[in-house]
Amino acid sequence: MELNVYLAGQIHDDWRAEIRQKAEEMELPLHFTGPMENHDRSDNIGEEILGKQPNSVLKDEAASSLNNLRTQILMQKADVVIALFGEQYKQWNTAMDASTAVASGKPLILIRPEKLHHPVKEIANKAQVVVETKEQALQALSYVFETQ
Amino acid sequence: MELNVYLAGQIHDDWRAEIRQKAEEMELPLHFTGPMENHDRSDNIGEEILGKQPNSVLKDEAASSLNNLRTQILMQKADVVIALFGEQYKQWNTAMDASTAVASGKPLILIRPEKLHHPVKEIANKAQVVVETKEQALQALSYVFETQ
Amino acid sequence: MELNVYLAGQIHDDWRAEIRQKAEEMELPLHFTGPMENHDRSDNIGEEILGKQPNSVLKDEAASSLNNLRTQILMQKADVVIALFGEQYKQWNTAMDASTAVASGKPLILIRPEKLHHPVKEIANKAQVVVETKEQALQALSYVFETQ
Amino acid sequence: MELNVYLAGQIHDDWRAEIRQKAEEMELPLHFTGPMENHDRSDNIGEEILGKQPNSVLKDEAASSLNNLRTQILMQKADVVIALFGEQYKQWNTAMDASTAVASGKPLILIRPEKLHHPVKEIANKAQVVVETKEQALQALSYVFETQ
Amino acid sequence: MELNVYLAGQIHDDWRAEIRQKAEEMELPLHFTGPMENHDRSDNIGEEILGKQPNSVLKDEAASSLNNLRTQILMQKADVVIALFGEQYKQWNTAMDASTAVASGKPLILIRPEKLHHPVKEIANKAQVVVETKEQALQALSYVFETQ
Amino acid sequence: MELNVYLAGQIHDDWRAEIRQKAEEMELPLHFTGPMENHDRSDNIGEEILGKQPNSVLKDEAASSLNNLRTQILMQKADVVIALFGEQYKQWNTAMDASTAVASGKPLILIRPEKLHHPVKEIANKAQVVVETKEQALQALSYVFETQ
Amino acid sequence: MELNVYLAGQIHDDWRAEIRQKAEEMELPLHFTGPMENHDRSDNIGEEILGKQPNSVLKDEAASSLNNLRTQILMQKADVVIALFGEQYKQWNTAMDASTAVASGKPLILIRPEKLHHPVKEIANKAQVVVETKEQALQALSYVFETQ
Amino acid sequence: MELNVYLAGQIHDDWRAEIRQKAEEMELPLHFTGPMENHDRSDNIGEEILGKQPNSVLKDEAASSLNNLRTQILMQKADVVIALFGEQYKQWNTAMDASTAVASGKPLILIRPEKLHHPVKEIANKAQVVVETKEQALQALSYVFETQ
Repeated sequence: MELNVYLAGQIHDDWRAEIRQKAEEMELPLHFTGPMENHDRSDNIGEEILGKQPNSVLKDEAASSLNNLRTQILMQKADVVIALFGEQYKQWNTAMDASTAVASGKPLILIRPEKLHHPVKEIANKAQVVVETKEQALQALSYVFETQ
Repeated sequence: MELNVYLAGQIHDDWRAEIRQKAEEMELPLHFTGPMENHDRSDNIGEEILGKQPNSVLKDEAASSLNNLRTQILMQKADVVIALFGEQYKQWNTAMDASTAVASGKPLILIRPEKLHHPVKEIANKAQVVVETKEQALQALSYVFETQ
Repeated sequence: MELNVYLAGQIHDDWRAEIRQKAEEMELPLHFTGPMENHDRSDNIGEEILGKQPNSVLKDEAASSLNNLRTQILMQKADVVIALFGEQYKQWNTAMDASTAVASGKPLILIRPEKLHHPVKEIANKAQVVVETKEQALQALSYVFETQ
Repeated sequence: MELNVYLAGQIHDDWRAEIRQKAEEMELPLHFTGPMENHDRSDNIGEEILGKQPNSVLKDEAASSLNNLRTQILMQKADVVIALFGEQYKQWNTAMDASTAVASGKPLILIRPEKLHHPVKEIANKAQVVVETKEQALQALSYVFETQ
Repeated sequence: MELNVYLAGQIHDDWRAEIRQKAEEMELPLHFTGPMENHDRSDNIGEEILGKQPNSVLKDEAASSLNNLRTQILMQKADVVIALFGEQYKQWNTAMDASTAVASGKPLILIRPEKLHHPVKEIANKAQVVVETKEQALQALSYVFETQ
Repeated sequence: MELNVYLAGQIHDDWRAEIRQKAEEMELPLHFTGPMENHDRSDNIGEEILGKQPNSVLKDEAASSLNNLRTQILMQKADVVIALFGEQYKQWNTAMDASTAVASGKPLILIRPEKLHHPVKEIANKAQVVVETKEQALQALSYVFETQ
Repeated sequence: MELNVYLAGQIHDDWRAEIRQKAEEMELPLHFTGPMENHDRSDNIGEEILGKQPNSVLKDEAASSLNNLRTQILMQKADVVIALFGEQYKQWNTAMDASTAVASGKPLILIRPEKLHHPVKEIANKAQVVVETKEQALQALSYVFETQ
Repeated sequence: MELNVYLAGQIHDDWRAEIRQKAEEMELPLHFTGPMENHDRSDNIGEEILGKQPNSVLKDEAASSLNNLRTQILMQKADVVIALFGEQYKQWNTAMDASTAVASGKPLILIRPEKLHHPVKEIANKAQVVVETKEQALQALSYVFETQ
């Protein structure tokens, strides 16, 4: 049995690569997907495909239609979603993806530093598991496969 | 026909009272619900009902279990959700409620200042209608009832 | 028992008024809803609420977001949908609303002139009842209430 | 990961072959399905299997029951639907399939010439992505698989 | 609290009138619906509304489209379904309505004479309650309201 | 707005009467339902309606078919479920009703003495709110209605 | 692409073997399932597994619990259901399986001799395709795979 | 065709190993999953991953969040659930998993000693099959695959 895991969260550093590498080291049968991690491409994808837009709001709207296409397709194939909140950025997409997972019946593992607990508390209450590190998130998934 | 409208968003000012008053002036058959608008009570409700908790994370967890109970019950009764984003606060709950509405098949009207469009663009793309003012949100709902 | 009936179809003549009047004459306990029947208002509603848009495609996009808000809210409250196809106009919205009704588990009554059967045949096959006149559509609904 | 793509739209020219070929050139892991592309066979399939029908409406009804069987089975296996609108033909089936996809929770990519935007605006508003060319539709799907 | 009860079964005698009368005597807050009980009208309703059909199969098809419209609308409003099987008639509609109720999550009360148990055993196994008389079916519903 | 509340739990004492009375004192707009509270009647209802059964397992099976009919109908009408666990009795029905509520998307308030937490911990983790007293459960519901 | 096909209908002759053989001759990528075709075993399976039952109704109830387990598991894996009605037997299970398929969103192909149309008319109206022979049912499925 | 089977029940002895071995002897194409069978690990997994908790209730809450993550993921992949009740332990998780299976549309096979029937009667009534031994449960699954 292999699990599909969608990695929701910011795309400004390489936290997903770190998770992928650790999962490989732990020999976990996990297949990861997530948003476009190239931040510029994510912002520009609307104009790259649809051409120059009349203004910046419409450039954003075009990009988001493609980012949401990607998320919808990939999240429908996910068995479980990991959402990571950090101390920077608005991270409204992280909140959106985490909440969409829960409302769609997909279990959510939330990674957040303890100091962020207050603003993220209602999302945390909806998550199936709340952890502070990427290692703990993978240990949670490892537990699903263990028998001893 | 009367519509139930859940008002998702921050609870630091009286924007909901403003919407309620305008709706009354416009004589719209709308019934509004939303989160607890007394901010201190929202933060303390866990300890008020369940007693003193071991630490602040657990105080938050207790409060969020009651806030989410409220939201779940009231949103299930809503025909449409209005979510307001502003320039202050993390507003992760607003993103959570907006996304839960969409994932549950409830139409979403998003109110946000134009300058916030970039960070909220993927949520905006999921909303049925995106506006900048509370008046526009009510005009959208008024349109549902008009015949001419 | 009263039934909510959504009337899908073109908004260029007063066919809905005719249906409403006949239903009243037949003393049927039906409550009708439908799209904005003022064609100009339907086309302009986006700019009326959201302001001038950069071009005609975006004017259309703004209007359609409000028209779809209306349809989504009203169709979710409908017990049954009547869709009327005529010989004029593209009527893609009629096809959209009829198909959305079927895919959402709502019974569909299709009114179309016999000569249109060929192009509408796949939608007709999904409809619960196919008729040629508005009277027949109302007779079908009348039958739901009759006991003799 | 491979995606199943249902190609909704008219069956009078070879636009699907063009899409299949381009996807192959782009080495995209896509598997395409769609309606019967032989127009005569699509119109006659009812009588071919069920025998001569009493009149042309019933010939159509017989054919549409088989065409809808095909669409229902294939669309249930689709991860995403592409719907193409052109300037000819009524294309009510295209509107029907596009709307069924959206109402069933499947993401929709709409291809239409800009000049058709006005009549197709409400369907466009429901689509996840709206483009003008087949290349753009495939670029949108390519984006789902890209990581850089 | 009032319950809507759909009465599925043959329409050749007045068993529904008997149930309605008993329920009134027992002062149960039940509202009953069911198929057209006038057998001729049920068979002819297709031609009565749609006009003369080319042959008897098509007359049947026309009638069934209207009978199913009625059943779909009324069963969607039902809280519970009572299905009665007797020793006469094919009663395939009874089996159809009983099974549709179960597959739609509506509780089913099955009334059948004990001697019919063998052929109806798989439907009986899906029913929530199996009884032999109309009185027992009403006693079962009465139990839902009792507190002592 | 009034809420329907299903009270799941043992039927050996009058804890539901206590909740009903407190809710009345608190002037909460709650309507309560629950299982048959007369224990003998709950055990014997199968034979009371269906007649003497061949053995005690079948007597139990008959009774449970009627008890489950009642629960299914009443829980489908509930907006929220309160489940009370105590230190006596097996309470497998309480666990069943609590879990059915959660799996059906209905919010669950769990009342249990702290000392029972270990065996009930997985159910508690699924509950939206976990409390120790009936007063706390009602305070949680009161919070749903409060605005200050 | 391979399709799973559930074959609902009587188990007194070898009509399923005939379908399997024809499908093989036509080289259709179909995988067939269906009920236990050994009639005695189907009737006795309850006592074979659960032991001697107190009476014949309970023997039937035991058998039907196992037959329904089989049907539920296999039909959930089916892409399409073929139901065959003949002139003999009550065939209430056929009606049950056909209706369950439709209510579960699975397309139904109905095979029935024309002379049976009257009693089966409401089920026929719910079927996606109605045919008279097994060959026609397979031709309908063949059409799903054809491109020319 | 292979079936995924979730084995719900206590984790104090090796009943699952017994089932796995018998299934292998019977050469049944079954793939089994279930909860963590190492009881200490199941109780401590919360602190093992999340670190020391403030008190025993919170240690339990942490453990249950991980146990429920495991159950949710594995049960969503199950085609059928076997739940075993014995004479020891509270077994509220068994009742929870059995009820979740039923409410999620997954068939349930219940194993329980006859003497336990009274307290488990309402769960038994919801199960598709009720047996007394592990062999019988496997015979029931074997029956799904047999053709003679």
